[in-house]
Amino acid sequence: MANEIAVVLISGGMDSALSAGIAIDMRFDIAALHLNYGQKTQMRELKSYTDICDFYNIEQRLIVDVNHLSAIGGSSLTSPDIEVDKANLNNNEIPSSYVPFRNANILSIAVSWAEVIGAKAIFIGAMQLDNSGYPDCRREFFDAFEKTIELGTKAGTSIKIFTPLINMTKKEIVVMGDDIGVPFHLTWSCYSDSEIACGVCDSCALRLRGFQQAGISDPLEYKQIPDYLNF
Amino acid sequence: MANEIAVVLISGGMDSALSAGIAIDMRFDIAALHLNYGQKTQMRELKSYTDICDFYNIEQRLIVDVNHLSAIGGSSLTSPDIEVDKANLNNNEIPSSYVPFRNANILSIAVSWAEVIGAKAIFIGAMQLDNSGYPDCRREFFDAFEKTIELGTKAGTSIKIFTPLINMTKKEIVVMGDDIGVPFHLTWSCYSDSEIACGVCDSCALRLRGFQQAGISDPLEYKQIPDYLNF
Repeated sequence: MANEIAVVLISGGMDSALSAGIAIDMRFDIAALHLNYGQKTQMRELKSYTDICDFYNIEQRLIVDVNHLSAIGGSSLTSPDIEVDKANLNNNEIPSSYVPFRNANILSIAVSWAEVIGAKAIFIGAMQLDNSGYPDCRREFFDAFEKTIELGTKAGTSIKIFTPLINMTKKEIVVMGDDIGVPFHLTWSCYSDSEIACGVCDSCALRLRGFQQAGISDPLEYKQIPDYLNF
Repeated sequence: MANEIAVVLISGGMDSALSAGIAIDMRFDIAALHLNYGQKTQMRELKSYTDICDFYNIEQRLIVDVNHLSAIGGSSLTSPDIEVDKANLNNNEIPSSYVPFRNANILSIAVSWAEVIGAKAIFIGAMQLDNSGYPDCRREFFDAFEKTIELGTKAGTSIKIFTPLINMTKKEIVVMGDDIGVPFHLTWSCYSDSEIACGVCDSCALRLRGFQQAGISDPLEYKQIPDYLNF
């Protein structure tokens, strides 16, 4: 019997790379979906996506431009006018890098594709613990979205949303990824720069702290390592 | 006190034109959202959208390209390889013009915009009775989506989905639209043609039957009127 197909969202970051690795371990055939949403590091993330697909020999690929999220604005990830926040990992407010309802936009595209190609699963590397407070990264959001899939697709369609990282910390992601051979050296996390990671944006800081806590060295090079990580 | 803002989806068809008219009657300030999703009649529908916005003096407008729905395919609306079905109004199967999960894609964009501009409502002219069987046109789908909005947006955000046409027939839409002065002469419904409406596609046939049953004459010109409408 042929393997079932899973649409896996691969941004190029370490979370989605682990999510892909887990889907492969679960014997799904992967259909890799990548979105360009007008973020500053779009081309660098696209390269990581391609490198990860090549690494895992994924043939079925779809790259979608969702630049309307940039037009809609309201986010430092997509607006050149707003500076990306320096990380403050003790701050529980939603950061300015928030794109409103981004995961719903992403999942809707994934479901449309999944229905056409007959995929039974969608994998998304969302984390509710270590996620800088994005409301659409919580499992209860994904549960509600699964209900809309059930009601909004043809009778007989069954598409489940897998969030294998949902309760993991960045440390656990590093440990598990290291364990199952995820190619972290091919991933990209920095929100600010595309040549050498800045080390000081939210995403770099969370990544660096994860590697540090795991006691594993990050294969990427950084411009600077924030002082508060040296504890 | 200033009026509340409603994001109104205006495709250019008669349903969304009535939806806009109702939102205005309810004293919302309208922010008009239009989507180009690679359909054959894209430019003609865009013209109708603009004409309707001008008619209602709507200033806040957003036009979004969602051509990925075309790339994803699976639909005669977006794929030049699949012929648009001739109407068969007694056929309860989902027609080939179905774009999987289209309304979820549309609503996700509407919610992202609504959160940024502080809109409290989204109006969509979906009909569950007369809708050719699209699963994402049923009120239970919109109820589920409202739940995902509640869970996927910032705490304190409240955005309701208004579906004022949900239980209306095309006849009732024609009657009510005529009553409140909706500019049906500016709308476009045909899936096949952009100069003169074909009269025979699903959408033309539903429209023509609605006007006929309402006893009101359709201000648009048609290439042909199907025989079975002459009852």
